[in-house]
Order: sequence, then C-alpha cells, then structure tokens
Amino acid sequence: MRYVDFVNPNYQPGETDVVCTFHVEPRGISLKEAAGGVAAESSIGTWTELTTVKPYVQKLAATVFSLEGDTAKIAYPIELFELGNMPNILSSIQGNVFGLRTLENLRLNDIQFPTQLLKSFKGPKYGVDGIRRLLRVYNRPLIGTIIKPKLGLRTTDHAKVAYDAWVGGCDIVKDDENLSSQNFNPFEKRVMATLESRDRAEEETGEKKIYMVNVTAETNEMLRRSQLVLDHNGEYVMVDILTCGFAALQTLREQDMNLVIHAHRAGHGAFTKDPRHGVSMRVVAKAARTVGVDQLHVGTVVGKMFETREEVQENCDAVTQEMAGLKRVLPVASGGLHPALVPALMEFFGLDFAIQAGGGIHGHRDGTVAGAKAMRQAVDATLVGVSLEEHSKEHHELETAMQMWGQIA
Amino acid sequence: MRYVDFVNPNYQPGETDVVCTFHVEPRGISLKEAAGGVAAESSIGTWTELTTVKPYVQKLAATVFSLEGDTAKIAYPIELFELGNMPNILSSIQGNVFGLRTLENLRLNDIQFPTQLLKSFKGPKYGVDGIRRLLRVYNRPLIGTIIKPKLGLRTTDHAKVAYDAWVGGCDIVKDDENLSSQNFNPFEKRVMATLESRDRAEEETGEKKIYMVNVTAETNEMLRRSQLVLDHNGEYVMVDILTCGFAALQTLREQDMNLVIHAHRAGHGAFTKDPRHGVSMRVVAKAARTVGVDQLHVGTVVGKMFETREEVQENCDAVTQEMAGLKRVLPVASGGLHPALVPALMEFFGLDFAIQAGGGIHGHRDGTVAGAKAMRQAVDATLVGVSLEEHSKEHHELETAMQMWGQIA
Repeated sequence: MRYVDFVNPNYQPGETDVVCTFHVEPRGISLKEAAGGVAAESSIGTWTELTTVKPYVQKLAATVFSLEGDTAKIAYPIELFELGNMPNILSSIQGNVFGLRTLENLRLNDIQFPTQLLKSFKGPKYGVDGIRRLLRVYNRPLIGTIIKPKLGLRTTDHAKVAYDAWVGGCDIVKDDENLSSQNFNPFEKRVMATLESRDRAEEETGEKKIYMVNVTAETNEMLRRSQLVLDHNGEYVMVDILTCGFAALQTLREQDMNLVIHAHRAGHGAFTKDPRHGVSMRVVAKAARTVGVDQLHVGTVVGKMFETREEVQENCDAVTQEMAGLKRVLPVASGGLHPALVPALMEFFGLDFAIQAGGGIHGHRDGTVAGAKAMRQAVDATLVGVSLEEHSKEHHELETAMQMWGQIA
Repeated sequence: MRYVDFVNPNYQPGETDVVCTFHVEPRGISLKEAAGGVAAESSIGTWTELTTVKPYVQKLAATVFSLEGDTAKIAYPIELFELGNMPNILSSIQGNVFGLRTLENLRLNDIQFPTQLLKSFKGPKYGVDGIRRLLRVYNRPLIGTIIKPKLGLRTTDHAKVAYDAWVGGCDIVKDDENLSSQNFNPFEKRVMATLESRDRAEEETGEKKIYMVNVTAETNEMLRRSQLVLDHNGEYVMVDILTCGFAALQTLREQDMNLVIHAHRAGHGAFTKDPRHGVSMRVVAKAARTVGVDQLHVGTVVGKMFETREEVQENCDAVTQEMAGLKRVLPVASGGLHPALVPALMEFFGLDFAIQAGGGIHGHRDGTVAGAKAMRQAVDATLVGVSLEEHSKEHHELETAMQMWGQIA
C-alpha cells in the first residue's frame, strides 16, 4: 500500500475506532499523500511497498476519512493498540509521524477514544465530586496556593508559610513543580512538618485543609513517597505527569491508593504552544483523565501563561465532558493569578475549579496570611455578585491587593 | 527580585552548576527581562516580589551570564535539583518556562550537567564496547531491521520474518515502536517464538544474533516483561523512552538487569523539530545517556526523517563525547534507510553505529532474506572502499536493491 491508499473519504469510523484530528502541512508532496502517510506510519504502512504484508494485516490499516483545508481526520482500528497501555497508544498516534521529512508541520489537535479503550483504564478515583466531599466545600471554587519562593525555603519556613496560607483562608497548599526532595527541604521532613501545620490550621479554622505533596521521582521512589504521605495522614499527591511520564503515572494510579492525584503539566508548552505543530493540551488532558488523575492544570485565561480562551475551554471540556462514564477531573487554574483576577476566572470557569495563586498570595505586601485573606475575600464577593472595588471598602486585605495588582491582567 | 535581577554578565559558572543554552524570543518585553524570567521561573523568582523570600534563599538564584543575539546561557546552582531524580531536573529546566506569555518562542538548545550530578545516575551499563563484546562484531556498523509491517503480523509470521532477516545477514531484529502486546501478536508468545528463531539463525550462521523486544508499558508491566525476556535468554529490551517517560526509564535502569537497553524516541519530533521553540534532541540524548540507555536513535542524515546533518552530529556527540566517564551510547540510524544509502551513512557515522532498515529490507522485491543480504553486501563493499555499483555486478541482491532504490535519498 502506498501512502495515498490510506485515504478513503467513504470510510465511516466505527464505534471501536480511535479517531484523531490532525493539522497537516505537507512538504513537497500532496496533502492527500501527506495525510495518508500519517495514517500509514501509525498503522501498517511505510515509505515503500513490503513483501511481508499478509492479507489478514490489511484490515488493520488506519484511514484518513476526512480532509478539509489543513485538517485530516484519521480512524485507527482499536486492534492496533494494546488496551490499558497508554505509552503504547501514544507511541502509535503521536510517535514517529512528527519526524517525517515530508511534513512541514503536523499537530495532533484532538483525539476520541472509544469506550472499549477507555474502559481498559482506571480513570479518576475521586474526580470533582470526590474532592468536594473530601474538602466539604460544595459551592465555591477551591482556593489554593503554591509555596513561594518555589525553591530554597527550608522545611520549617516552608511549613510556616503553608500554615499562614491555610489560616488566611486557603483550602489547598501545593508544592511547586520542581520541589521534590532537595537538601534544603527533604521530602520526609517536609511532609511531616507541613502536615503538622495542616493539623493545627484545621483545628484553628474548623475547615478541612489539604497539602498537595510533590512526589515526582523515579517510579518506585514515587510510590514510596506516596505511601509515606498516606502514612502521615496526607490525602493528596502531586505528580509532574510529563516529566515523569505516562508509564509511571499509570503505575501510581494502578496502586489504587487512597490518594487524590493532582497532575501538574510542567513542560507541556514545549509541544502544545505552536498551533501548527505538536500536540494540543486537550489531547494530554484526555490521556491523563483516562489513566486517572483527579485534578489537572488547564490554563488560566488571565495571568502569566500563554493559552487562549478557546484552548483553555477545550482543556476544560476534555476533563469534564461525558467520556464513557469516567469521573470529571477538577480543572486547576494556575500561573500569575491574584485576587483582582478572580471575577474573570469565575466568569470563565464557574464554580468547579481550583484557583492556585503563588505570587498573588505571598507577594501581598502584608504577607501570606493577608494574601490568603484577600483571595478568599475576592471569591466571597464574586460569589454574591459584589464587585471587588465595593468589597474592598470593608476588607482591608483585598483593598491592598487591589492597589498592588488591580491593573495587572 | 525582578526578572532583570537574574541577569549578571559578570557571573562565572562554577563547576557544580548546570548550564543551559536557550534560544529566546521575547514578546512585549526586553530580551534581558525575558531571559531573566527563564532563570527566575526555574529557580527562586516569580512574576511579582515575594514577602516570603529568606536571605538564605538568594544564593540559589539561577543566573543569565551570557546574552548574545537570541542566545541566553543560564547557570543553575546544583542545590536547586534533587540528584538522581531526572523528572525533577527536567521539571525545573524544561518545565513551566515554555508556557510563559512573555515569550514568543523558547528553545532549550543544549545542557551541560556537572560531574556531581552525572555521578548520581547509573549511566549506560553496556554502551558501545559492551554491545560489541556481546555481538562479537568489532569492525563494522551493526546491521539491523525492524519487523514490517510494523503492526498486524501474527506471531508465527513475525518470528519467520525475523528468522529471514537474521539468516540473510542482519545482526539485529527489532520490534517497531508501537508493537507491545496486541492481540494479534501477544508479548510472551512473541518473545518465545522470536528467540527460538534467533537460536536457529545463530546455529545456522555461526553469528551472534540479537532480538530487541519492545517492552514499552506501565512500569511494573515493563519490568515484568523485561524479566520475561531474560528468562527466555534474551539480551535486549527496547523502550519508547518519551511515551513511557523518564521515571519509568530510570526504574528499569535501576534494576540493573543484564539487559541492553535500546532507546526509541517516538514522539520527539513534536518538540524537537522547530528550531525556535521546544527542546533539542541532543538535550534528550544527554538525559537518556545520563539515566543509562545503551543505544539511542539519533537521526539518519539521509532517509525519511527531517533532521539536518548538524543536528544528527550534535546528537552523536551528545551520546559519545566524554561526559564524566559515562560509557558511550551506540548511535542508531533508522527511518527510510536502504542499501543504496549505506556509503553516505558510513561516511557520516563511521563504524560505531547501527543501521536499522525496515522497508529497505522487507521491501526488497525478492523478500526479506534477499533484502538483508543486500544490506550486508552494501556494508561489506563500503568497508573495503568498493562502490555499490561495482559490487552489484557480482552480488545479485544488492543489484536488485540498487535498481529499486538507487535514486531515493
């Protein structure tokens, strides 16, 4: 079969097919040949005709069934994949094809997994509803912070900043994505000290508080650290899913530990940012939900990250829309957020999301407690339809935050 | 500290610093601020000043010490990282920075790990010399094939094609990157049948033959499959290091099994292809060597993959040049290769590399045995300085291959 033989506009995708949507820009060949090449190289074809193809192999060909403008839709028979093996699935659909010389650019924009494939994975253990039950917070966004400075604080200072954030009004305290177990703040010591801060904060505030511990490491060490979190009565772990990778993420999820999995996407921008080449974040989001994370960073609409509203919406849809009964993943907005941005965030995300602010809390002129209060005040005001300007008149911490950052979108 | 405070042209990188070279294109801010932002966001800074920074934290700042044209060099104190934890290191240096709105483009072009960091990983167990001892082939490139069609062949046909390739003259038979354990060719059955083919081929040819089995899967399953390869007297496993991820790769290496690790890079093109954004392949290569793979795909110079000669050279240098005494990784050329390309390949790569040809062997009009013979003939001729045209006169298989593909670069 030649590349063009993998194109068939009359093909109707079946209900067990994996369906991918690609942006395709050919180099020196026709669009049809280029799109056919993508289907070929991820199924049973290659650059030349083979003597080793058996008749029974033909039915496993992937098919380009739609070609409009730069967009190709490709259906892959489910038999091409090993069910329950995400690395295998990713190697097939987003593997060698990006390296082909005959493609100027190629972007995997979307993917639809068939139910049979989705059912071969665990999916989220908790999801939005499980998280809300755990936190006993049902009618507002969750409010979180990331300990800042992101690296360098010693354990006792780390635990103190966490305590301040919680008593100020944060539900969640999260390690930053590159804090794991450095000498200045080793893992076990940090877990113990910070969960002790959590216990005190819970006692003082009467609210449930959460510490999301970064367990990013080699797989066995990640499992060991996760068990340690459990042993110290922690309920959450955080994983940098892209730098760890999907094999380790699957391993963690398949232990079925009583831990909520917070997924950080550090590094995604290297391949999601260019609208013409790479892989979209929503594809990552669907893969992560399928494997079974409970929370995922999806962008911010406002703040310091690059994604457009449309992309963030796609990411939210990917983790919350119906998908073979898989639980909904909680969208997390994080990156350059501060109290003045809360109305825009809640307008976009609604109530079912987490606001994570680092600098926007610990940068507050009056310190972390005041910063957390200001954030909580911003959420409280927006919930009841009061403007932040109005609410500031009787809430000093918010007033200061608005003075500091009111002009920064 | 503001972003610009992370720039200091007078800073001299110390011998324990990690040093990265970035291509930086700012959006709406100065180059100095943009480069400083990259250093800040991967060390102790963020978008706003913090109240929580302690004096002892300052010494952990990363520093932009050189800014020339679009190129920024950044030094990171080793204390920022957890030694022996590759996911953590990657989360820091190639994490959030790609998502910053104030950067139009950002590419991590190179990285230098300090000796202390390199020593915290195992590095390759076998490397080039170990592989040569195992194969007892010292004075020529290794010749390998990938079973084609890449997916769909049933186990007995898979093992037969492998046998044909070995008796034709291949040293190595490799699974394709997306063959793991599909129903048409389940893992254990395949390992047993194909290693049986190998034994027969070894007996008939008197040469050492190698089967590189693709164990790409969730971590524990990958370890189980690797053990199974060992149990059946296999010597090699193959891992899709990017779709599995570095946590699982590290786990596999740290088992220290008596298995050569062949690293496939499926998916790299999603973030390595754009010269202005993403991460270069040589950075991936250095990380993989540090963790400890023995062989790695580095590009082809010729064939169906996109990389330039310069990039392929960088990749080769990354895996073979002196690096704190780490063993040399064997460069693997794979993608659209066939016998007519052998002189160009050997001119570029020399002798210490593996030529992997799939379609260029199984596409040979007279079948796999003839295809493997033609490839071996092309190598033999080139080794003694005889042109393929000349050698074709007395070697029918090569003659046919030259007729079929002589014009395809």
